Parts: sequence; structure tokens; C-alpha cells
Amino acid sequence: MRLYDGGKAPNPRRVRIFLAEKGVEVPLVSVDMTAFGHKSDTVRALNPLQRLPVLELDDGTALSESVAICRYFEEMFPEPPLMGVSILDRAVVEMWQRRIEMHLLAIVGNVFRHAHPAMAEWEVPQIKEFSEANRPKVLDMLSLLNSELADRPFIAGERFTIADITAMIAIDFMKPARLQVPDDHLALMAWYGRVKARPSAGA
Amino acid sequence: MRLYDGGKAPNPRRVRIFLAEKGVEVPLVSVDMTAFGHKSDTVRALNPLQRLPVLELDDGTALSESVAICRYFEEMFPEPPLMGVSILDRAVVEMWQRRIEMHLLAIVGNVFRHAHPAMAEWEVPQIKEFSEANRPKVLDMLSLLNSELADRPFIAGERFTIADITAMIAIDFMKPARLQVPDDHLALMAWYGRVKARPSAGA
Repeated sequence: MRLYDGGKAPNPRRVRIFLAEKGVEVPLVSVDMTAFGHKSDTVRALNPLQRLPVLELDDGTALSESVAICRYFEEMFPEPPLMGVSILDRAVVEMWQRRIEMHLLAIVGNVFRHAHPAMAEWEVPQIKEFSEANRPKVLDMLSLLNSELADRPFIAGERFTIADITAMIAIDFMKPARLQVPDDHLALMAWYGRVKARPSAGA
Repeated sequence: MRLYDGGKAPNPRRVRIFLAEKGVEVPLVSVDMTAFGHKSDTVRALNPLQRLPVLELDDGTALSESVAICRYFEEMFPEPPLMGVSILDRAVVEMWQRRIEMHLLAIVGNVFRHAHPAMAEWEVPQIKEFSEANRPKVLDMLSLLNSELADRPFIAGERFTIADITAMIAIDFMKPARLQVPDDHLALMAWYGRVKARPSAGA
């Protein structure tokens, strides 16, 4: 088994953090995305959508999509659980994971990809107006998260889960997108401090 | 338990199809999204993101996000399995489900929401250039699906799964977006005929 990794980009990072939380070590194959390594024939053969990370299993099966890779490891190595501990809890974790993905991570990505000069070859055409239109949506979601986190320690409840990983990488992705958490979002900042202090955050 | 339903929109529809495949009947509460019923105080209290569907459980828990709702029913009513039958198969189904969601359903949505006159109050600002930029991405994904379906009956393999449901509603959503499956995509059309012929398709 080996994981084709994409370095600093948000999706490769969230799979590495997930594995670090599980205490599972998987051999990494580094792919330089800044040199468009994810467009290589090797990666294309593993994932026709040319995205990273990709997990190649010993039987040759190639799994892509970060959350699908995480689910594979969740079931292979159930402890500690990062995707819920009961039928209802798993559904609640998935609800939050998806909310964060679609209303924060993807939206920050829209702001970044459609405005940052480094993305000019990645996102064609770059549409500045679309980047700008997404900025207030990021702030709306941060505000919702700040109020949700006022009365619980983690995004999906009492436990650290994949929803926290996705939220942390989304907030870190705000920096290159030139977005900031508003100063008065104290509950959100306290949560960020907690998740960022975990050893896995450096993975 | 009751399901706050949103009629013809893609996400409410995919949950109803999922339930029909399971043979599970859940009382529906109809919400008129054309009259902005999803922005009501009732829906906001259940889902701060004001999206449908929402499943309200007997203990008051409100579950939103279509795939989270589907996963809840998958675990409560395992037969027939619609999200995979083994650890690896579940990961493969999730991979395909997410590929279809992000590279087809969401992209068709971008074409539709940023161009259709009926969406002018929903997507502010509507950015026509962004709608246009998404059209070729839809065609790329249809081409990939057509080649994938040349040698297997369903999106994620030998069985009908949630990935087929998401793909069918995405392709049906192409009509209001004024997009068409190219005539030479025969394997994709044969697959569409198979899934559309299932009784669940009318749910």
C-alpha cells in the first residue's frame, strides 16, 4: 500500500492528519503539485480526474477522494473513531463534515482559485467577480461555526472527528486566500487553538 | 420521524429515491422551495443553512445533508445495500459518489444557478461567465463516465448504489441547465436507461 501525496494542498493534508490521529503509517510517494505532478501519466492512470491524494492498495486498486480514503482507514483501523461512534453519531459527523466541506472548504477554494496569481494556470478562466462573491459566504459560515462552538468542544459534538480536520485545513487555507477569522469569534478561535495544538496538526 | 421535503430539487429527490430503493416509508412534510419555504423559521430552526431535505427524528434531532440522511437509513435498514458491501467496496462507492457530486452535480448546478432567469433571486450575483466556464467541465465528466460504463453496469461496479442515484439526478438536472448528453455516449445512455427504468426513479 502507498499513498500518492500532494504536499501542502488541503486534501493531501487532511488525509495525512487523519492517519496521524489513527497512528497509522503508510509509505508516501511525494508528488510535486506545483510542477503539475498530479497531471502526470502515473497519476492519471490511478485517478482519471488527476487529483491527489490517491491510495494504491497492494492488489492494484486505486482509491481517490480524500474522504473515501479516510473511510477506508476508519473501517480498517476503528480506533480512535474519527467518523462517529453510533448510527446517529455517524450521521451527525457526516452532516458536519459535509457542511464544512461545501460551505467552508469549497468556498475558501473558490475565493483562492479565482483570484490568486499562482492559480492562473490552474483555474482557467479566473473570474475575479466570482472570487469576490464567495468572500461573504466564508464569513457567514465562520459566524455559524462560532455560535455552534459556544457550547461544545468540537464541530460535531464531544469528540474530535474528521469534521474538525476538514475545518482546520479550511481555516488554514484561508491564509493564501487572504481571508481572516474575525477577532470577535472567540469560540471559534478557542476551538482552533485546541485542534491546532494536537500533534496531528503538523502532519 | 418526518422528512422535510423540497419537491423537484435534486437533493430532496435523491433522498426520496434512496428511500424508495430501501422500501422505507417516511412521513413527508412538503416545503415549497419556489415560495422560499426553505427560508422559513421552521426550516431555519432545523437547519441553520436553510437547505432541504431535513430529517427530524422522534427525539428532536434534526439531520440535514442528503448523504448524511442516506447513511442514517443505510445503517438502520441495511438491505438492499446502497453504499457498498465490504470495507473496500464502501470506499469505492464513496469515491464514485463524491466524484459524481463534485464533478457533475455541483458543476451542473453552477451552470444552472449562474445563468437561469429563475435563479436570479437565489444566486446573487449571477455570473454568466462562471456559468459558461462550467459547461465544458460537465462534458468532460460525461465523457469519463461514458468510458467507465463501457465495461460495468453501474457507476461504482456490479451493483446499483447511491452513486447511480446521484448521477441520475445530476443528469436530469442538466435539462433546466440546458445541457445535453452527447449522442455518441452510448454506454452512458444505456446506463441512464437502466436506472431510469427502476420504479424508484419516479419517487
